[in-house]
Amino acid sequence: MRTSYCGDVSEALLGQDVTLMGWAHRRRDHGGVIFIDLRDRQGLVQIVCDPDRAEMFKTAEGVRNEFCLQVKGKVRARPAGTENGNLVSGKIEVLCHELTVLNPSVTPPFQLDDENLSETTRLTHRVLDLRRPQMQKNLMLRYRVAMECRKYLDELGFVDIETPMLTKSTPEGARDYLVPSRVHDGQFFALPQSPQLFKQLLMVAGFDRYYQITKCFRDEDLRADRQPEFTQIDIETSFLTEEEIRAMFEGMIRHVFRKAMNVELGDYPVMQYAEAMHRFGSDKPDLRVKLEFTELTDCMKDVDFKVFSGPATTPGGRVVALRVPGGAELSRGDIDAYTEFVKIYGAKGLAWVKVNEVAKGRDGLQSPIVKNLHDAAIAEVLKRTGAQDGDILFFGADKAKIVNDAIGALRLKVGHSDFAKAKGLFEDRWAPLWVVDFPMFEHDDENNRWAAVHHPFTAPKDGHEDLMATDPGQCIAKAYDMVLNGWELGGGSVRIHRADVQAKVFEALNISEDDQRLKFGFLLDALQYGAPPHGGLAFGLDRLVTLMTKAESIRDVIAFPKTQRAQCLLTGAPSMVDEKQLRELHIRLRNAAAATA
Amino acid sequence: MRTSYCGDVSEALLGQDVTLMGWAHRRRDHGGVIFIDLRDRQGLVQIVCDPDRAEMFKTAEGVRNEFCLQVKGKVRARPAGTENGNLVSGKIEVLCHELTVLNPSVTPPFQLDDENLSETTRLTHRVLDLRRPQMQKNLMLRYRVAMECRKYLDELGFVDIETPMLTKSTPEGARDYLVPSRVHDGQFFALPQSPQLFKQLLMVAGFDRYYQITKCFRDEDLRADRQPEFTQIDIETSFLTEEEIRAMFEGMIRHVFRKAMNVELGDYPVMQYAEAMHRFGSDKPDLRVKLEFTELTDCMKDVDFKVFSGPATTPGGRVVALRVPGGAELSRGDIDAYTEFVKIYGAKGLAWVKVNEVAKGRDGLQSPIVKNLHDAAIAEVLKRTGAQDGDILFFGADKAKIVNDAIGALRLKVGHSDFAKAKGLFEDRWAPLWVVDFPMFEHDDENNRWAAVHHPFTAPKDGHEDLMATDPGQCIAKAYDMVLNGWELGGGSVRIHRADVQAKVFEALNISEDDQRLKFGFLLDALQYGAPPHGGLAFGLDRLVTLMTKAESIRDVIAFPKTQRAQCLLTGAPSMVDEKQLRELHIRLRNAAAATA
Repeated sequence: MRTSYCGDVSEALLGQDVTLMGWAHRRRDHGGVIFIDLRDRQGLVQIVCDPDRAEMFKTAEGVRNEFCLQVKGKVRARPAGTENGNLVSGKIEVLCHELTVLNPSVTPPFQLDDENLSETTRLTHRVLDLRRPQMQKNLMLRYRVAMECRKYLDELGFVDIETPMLTKSTPEGARDYLVPSRVHDGQFFALPQSPQLFKQLLMVAGFDRYYQITKCFRDEDLRADRQPEFTQIDIETSFLTEEEIRAMFEGMIRHVFRKAMNVELGDYPVMQYAEAMHRFGSDKPDLRVKLEFTELTDCMKDVDFKVFSGPATTPGGRVVALRVPGGAELSRGDIDAYTEFVKIYGAKGLAWVKVNEVAKGRDGLQSPIVKNLHDAAIAEVLKRTGAQDGDILFFGADKAKIVNDAIGALRLKVGHSDFAKAKGLFEDRWAPLWVVDFPMFEHDDENNRWAAVHHPFTAPKDGHEDLMATDPGQCIAKAYDMVLNGWELGGGSVRIHRADVQAKVFEALNISEDDQRLKFGFLLDALQYGAPPHGGLAFGLDRLVTLMTKAESIRDVIAFPKTQRAQCLLTGAPSMVDEKQLRELHIRLRNAAAATA
Repeated sequence: MRTSYCGDVSEALLGQDVTLMGWAHRRRDHGGVIFIDLRDRQGLVQIVCDPDRAEMFKTAEGVRNEFCLQVKGKVRARPAGTENGNLVSGKIEVLCHELTVLNPSVTPPFQLDDENLSETTRLTHRVLDLRRPQMQKNLMLRYRVAMECRKYLDELGFVDIETPMLTKSTPEGARDYLVPSRVHDGQFFALPQSPQLFKQLLMVAGFDRYYQITKCFRDEDLRADRQPEFTQIDIETSFLTEEEIRAMFEGMIRHVFRKAMNVELGDYPVMQYAEAMHRFGSDKPDLRVKLEFTELTDCMKDVDFKVFSGPATTPGGRVVALRVPGGAELSRGDIDAYTEFVKIYGAKGLAWVKVNEVAKGRDGLQSPIVKNLHDAAIAEVLKRTGAQDGDILFFGADKAKIVNDAIGALRLKVGHSDFAKAKGLFEDRWAPLWVVDFPMFEHDDENNRWAAVHHPFTAPKDGHEDLMATDPGQCIAKAYDMVLNGWELGGGSVRIHRADVQAKVFEALNISEDDQRLKFGFLLDALQYGAPPHGGLAFGLDRLVTLMTKAESIRDVIAFPKTQRAQCLLTGAPSMVDEKQLRELHIRLRNAAAATA
């Protein structure tokens, strides 16, 4: 029926007859001629309806926005001076010979090119919202990314194997979505939080290389970048080392950027977790921001300023500076705003020093706090930070976690600001990296026990096996995260393949044998039967595409997302159901009033 | 770490050093030498461990079945006379230089090559079951099929767009799986029975060509070929006619057979629903079986035999014969067994006539029923069936549905029997076809109303729009099913894209406007905004692969299937959950005792 997509009609088709299908994006009368911008998923093309074809022209007069049309006509050059450089089809137009209204449209509730629509309006009228060219591009890019991953993995012998959606609830990690069983009174399936255990089982079963692009589910309170259901590119392989796995999947992301976006990702540093925390206070540093922490803990132990000396002399405390070149020109208002900002992350305040003249030492500094620091400390701060005239230094001093969170966030806040961009402190590029050598365990102070940083199936670094018993906090894992522009794109680990090592981890985590069997019995069983060395990782597809499209929200790269209240405004899900359905599932509502609310 | 898969080592690698990873499939001592069949997903290779390398040999002595091993060695020709023609690697063996046990195994609960395992054993120990070469092949073929579909669709501009797993319950069709909402007290999501409405919305949104290989869910009592979750290759396109859609997806299935199995599907007939019912009593006839119905309704109206004349003179009744060439040699026991068989489908009995000598007319026939048929009827039966000496004729006479079901099933039962194969009545080939021109509606006698044969969004044939009001039973739909070897592989339809036509369908189905809005409001809304002409179809991936692998059960092409009681024997799902989880979801169990059962 169609000879070409609208958006693909270019001067290559000059003089040819075309048949196009699409929607009337705009229609305007101009000098007795009707112009219709015809839109399909590939883009727009200008249709010219001359009055000399009376029947066609009459049809054109009736066309309104969003009518679905078939156009037959001839491609011709646009008159000089009327070209549109923004369109593939900008140099041509189609002289309409025959116009058919395939389906009319009532007046849409909003203009498709309105940039100021509320998210509620967009999600309620999602079908029209999805017609917007940007949404079309986002979802088509999402597809291209997924398909290029598949092609790359296919070449390497990875096999897509589907794992169950109706599986077993494991009450740890995030909250499960539950599905009542009709056949088994009182029992429930859970939707998977990830295929982790199944992909390990597939390795034990000998499939060697597995992947799946699959939905995962977490019933969490929703943040800006979370959805109840999200899509994971989930991968596992046998017989490869950590370095081989990283190289393979760095290759995949490079491939995807090249094929889907025509972007060559450059340098791909590998950074130890400890270094990332030391320099950026974050395990997913945004390397586009050219600001770093300066460690000051050791030189603030003996200053009079308790705000610094307290954390500096307390185990687990940390004192750092963040030097912002040229930041002395920040206003008092800017600094106050940053002070409020760091409080979100638990900081009690934000100490700062403006460096007016380094050469003058203490006298060249402007700050509420320098009076409390002795000369040696000031000299050390200036030396270590490499401060220059015109800089500002911000300080964080507290428990290490608070310092890292607060000054880490401040680093991004400042680094992404227009000020930083103007000063060259932000480099607009793709900044990928690997963060490696994560700790195996972190101490859960509240419950006074060790918890797994990744998950309890992560293998310790070679030679670290005994540390699990003697000094868990020093035990490093074969775990790795891929970070891009400060977002965690994915992560994974080499897994434990030997039952004896797995037992040591459970011991360190103080998980009883009964609990082990209850939760992971089928994995522990499987490990007994010659499980191969294996490892893998998972990427968040939604996040990856959000980054690639520079979308404001993950919801802009999902066709039918939920709101932050976990609702679908289009279909009205979730909704009430029949009493009969509940009865068949052997459940009832706790709050009877809710059923009729 | 590995230079080749075990199963891929062939004489092309003669004389080369290889490093292999795999599992000890069998180990045997023979003349002081240890032979290990090393297995990976690609197949087996024979490893030879000579005692002259003492350390290696000692390790080999400790190897037991299912140990995970690394082998370094040299490829050499097997001694003449010891080749194995069943293996790619059958002409070579690997002389082991270095042997590493990557992980030992406890003794497996069964031999992997035991062909007589119960399904319970297999599903309980699924990880070991999946190591069996046949299961590896099944799942790898499944992947190949899915990937080839993707490639074919990608070439044609189809875009994979994910639709929600957490969606709205629509209490019609099959039973929904429900997911209680934590955020919205008393409300539930449903897992999708299919992405039908969403894919239509994507067409209205202008995505033009959509596909998805996705999980669908139906909480039905499980039959042999059903699973609670199953996988659909779901497709929708705009601006194509029924014929264009069929050609495109016939092409896809041809492509998949060619690429995944190296099979050229031949002739692909298109058969009207009416013809299929007339000739085979089935809308998914197995054309490998060379048996057909002979219509006798019109010539049995006036016979004395009430069993025939009753249905022949009752509206909705049908009388047919099924001629089985050479069937006169069937024993009384065979016939009795077939008689019992047709009773499953509601038939009251099975009349039969053995044709000993056609030329003798009535006297040449052997049958309990011929005495009740007058000469003209007998002559007509012999003429229409084309009976030959040595045939048997079976008869069905009842309501048309019972005749079609019972004699249709008998046709398959006889046609798949060893007898039929010996007589050339079964052709062992791939027998695909399209069944088209389904009726729009079937009458629901119980509730005295019309019901949609496909779903209420199916478009009527051009010119049949008015029949929806005047004579719904005569209204033909633009619906089509793809059938292969008697299985419905997939089906679909051209959809209604105009709100006025959709309204007529709802009228014919007697669905009130309130109900329309409640259930399909968002689709009806969407149709108003210039919905394009569109249509599509869906294939059952599980079924397709079951057919291709000739697996006995759909469970043999799914990595982690549920039992017929909808349980996962590996993980123990479904299972009981914490009271706290139920409280958060605002539900409680009806049967408190079940919680502790």
